Amino acid sequence: MNNFNYYNPTKIFFGENSIENLSEQLKAYGENILLTYGGGSIKRNGIYPSVIKILKNENKNVFELSGIMSNPRKEKVYEGIKICKENNIDFILAIGGGSVIDCSKAISAGSKIDRDFWKAFFINNEECYDATPLGVILTIPATGSEMNLGSVVTDWEKNLKIGYMSKMLYPKFSILDPTYTYTLPKEQTIYGSIDILAHVFEQYFSEPNDSNLSYDLSEAIIKNVIENLEIVLLNPTDYIARSNLMWCSTMALNGVIGLGKNQDWTSHQIEHSLSAFYDIPHGAGLAIVFPSWMKYVYKHGLNKFVRYAINVWGVDIVNKTDEEIALEGIEKTKEYFVKIGAPITLTEVGIPKEDIDRITEKVFLPNTGYMKMTKEDVKNILIAAI
Amino acid sequence: MNNFNYYNPTKIFFGENSIENLSEQLKAYGENILLTYGGGSIKRNGIYPSVIKILKNENKNVFELSGIMSNPRKEKVYEGIKICKENNIDFILAIGGGSVIDCSKAISAGSKIDRDFWKAFFINNEECYDATPLGVILTIPATGSEMNLGSVVTDWEKNLKIGYMSKMLYPKFSILDPTYTYTLPKEQTIYGSIDILAHVFEQYFSEPNDSNLSYDLSEAIIKNVIENLEIVLLNPTDYIARSNLMWCSTMALNGVIGLGKNQDWTSHQIEHSLSAFYDIPHGAGLAIVFPSWMKYVYKHGLNKFVRYAINVWGVDIVNKTDEEIALEGIEKTKEYFVKIGAPITLTEVGIPKEDIDRITEKVFLPNTGYMKMTKEDVKNILIAAI
Repeated sequence: MNNFNYYNPTKIFFGENSIENLSEQLKAYGENILLTYGGGSIKRNGIYPSVIKILKNENKNVFELSGIMSNPRKEKVYEGIKICKENNIDFILAIGGGSVIDCSKAISAGSKIDRDFWKAFFINNEECYDATPLGVILTIPATGSEMNLGSVVTDWEKNLKIGYMSKMLYPKFSILDPTYTYTLPKEQTIYGSIDILAHVFEQYFSEPNDSNLSYDLSEAIIKNVIENLEIVLLNPTDYIARSNLMWCSTMALNGVIGLGKNQDWTSHQIEHSLSAFYDIPHGAGLAIVFPSWMKYVYKHGLNKFVRYAINVWGVDIVNKTDEEIALEGIEKTKEYFVKIGAPITLTEVGIPKEDIDRITEKVFLPNTGYMKMTKEDVKNILIAAI
Repeated sequence: MNNFNYYNPTKIFFGENSIENLSEQLKAYGENILLTYGGGSIKRNGIYPSVIKILKNENKNVFELSGIMSNPRKEKVYEGIKICKENNIDFILAIGGGSVIDCSKAISAGSKIDRDFWKAFFINNEECYDATPLGVILTIPATGSEMNLGSVVTDWEKNLKIGYMSKMLYPKFSILDPTYTYTLPKEQTIYGSIDILAHVFEQYFSEPNDSNLSYDLSEAIIKNVIENLEIVLLNPTDYIARSNLMWCSTMALNGVIGLGKNQDWTSHQIEHSLSAFYDIPHGAGLAIVFPSWMKYVYKHGLNKFVRYAINVWGVDIVNKTDEEIALEGIEKTKEYFVKIGAPITLTEVGIPKEDIDRITEKVFLPNTGYMKMTKEDVKNILIAAI
């Protein structure tokens, strides 16, 4: 187990009607609130009017930044920063999934500097010393951004999707009401769940391989997602299943299950490049990349892939080599993605073989995983996913 | 899943030499430090001199409260409060296990009021609005007090062992170095591990019974403790196994695995009464109470006991009734306690049948568990544990 530090100060309010905690939380901040959200879904499902009512009751001045797209772009962050600076915004309240939250985090950091936020934080990785405080009302369980310090923003013109992390970016609070996810489009439920699983995979499949509670906790989350996604796909308003998916989203990337691990994150980087060119859903890209990545690296972390096959998929080990067991676990993963309706090839999402070179070019390689990777390796992984 | 709030601001520094973080953390606080600890073990194993060196380098004035006993008594808290008040203590640094930490938490709260701390907080459960900040250097994995808001103190004369909880009592930071546990007496390792398991049981065996990630995470911790305690009992200086036990201690009671649950805590209350009369190790008391409690209540939460038997102990279910499966899981728990060398009867720790009435009398019943309990039930559980 590697040495680690852990600190996570985000307050979580979880459950039906947990919006009731919003008033009390907002009292700690000034009166100028920037409300950030995506399309019109929060107006259709009633979240928007209920939040506006609370803000008005608290005598807040409400400013708005709407239309935050998936794979949020830096232009939208500039828009938000401008609103913050011109109106002395005291608090940002993000209503949405990872895209809205990540865009809002970038705004919160960028609003406190005079320099260009993109260059300072996302390109140069400068330290963030101050940020406009941020609260979250979560509507899509997926990224875990509601309880972590990360933000991912895209420069669409340069096809760069980059992550930035700072302790200043933990949300002050996040309100997680599973009923808010009842009306999510089926695809978003599926892709969100794949994102959750992918976050676990990135942390699970890496050195050190020795016994670590993080492995046991990771398997617990994987199994819970599989169990509850199945129920939600049959009954989208199953409160308990929706609750579990939502809490799995948070627990998969609030830092806990990566403790003591190197972590990998190559597959996420490959997917970032895919969606920086094609604007495909993050979860769809991950379903395409992961099985191919697994098959490419499994020999370098064979014991872990064997453990995964047995503990997650119940692969029968009698008369099989470790390689056979590991490959069966990977195959089961792929079959699972197909079963829940995710794409597993580039072709399915319209990405042609000819684009693999330029996609590969933009992939950042963290190289903390089982296998030290070159761009050639990335290319091979993508070719195997055609 | 019940609605829940979660907030835990304790910073964790985990791993060999994580004491290196102490200087930096102390810079945030004033110069008068109260060092609290138990017997002389931290002087023998080298922790004390290394901490003193760091405190001196940081130009801190060091005051000391030593001799904090297991099942810490309120008199010791008064001693600490006196030191705090007389010397304007800015920060309390606790070196030890749960007893030292809990005593220090009570001191930290009591040092900020003019009233009697015992009456105000532990008897009347008044809210705590201020507390001397506290840091922890953990030496015994067991109570989880290093990352939670609770404190348990004993009034030995009245045979009352009472818990108190306040958000003011989260340690500011906790330093967890698994090598500090290499020289723990075997009994403390065993009883600490039982305490960890017992914390999981208290949260796991309660309503609601529906699918909840907390169950999966709980089973992950139970299995990790069983796996790693076995290794530690064979090789007390196995770093990885010691690391896992230490991190399991924290994760079992930092709030995460109880989220969305009613939780029970009757067995802890019964044990508190045992050790308030007999000063037996908390873990020993829990090993005696738990199998008996399980057998007494299992019919009221049958599905959960069946799940536990299968997922934790791998009980074969072919041709068995649910009751048989559940009972086999309970029996395995009991056998496990015997195997690791814990007592499972009152007789083994010298508590006579005649004392059951007065022990029962002092048991506080939270009654949030599967079974609504009366004192008669407590008595029956203790009689079955003779």
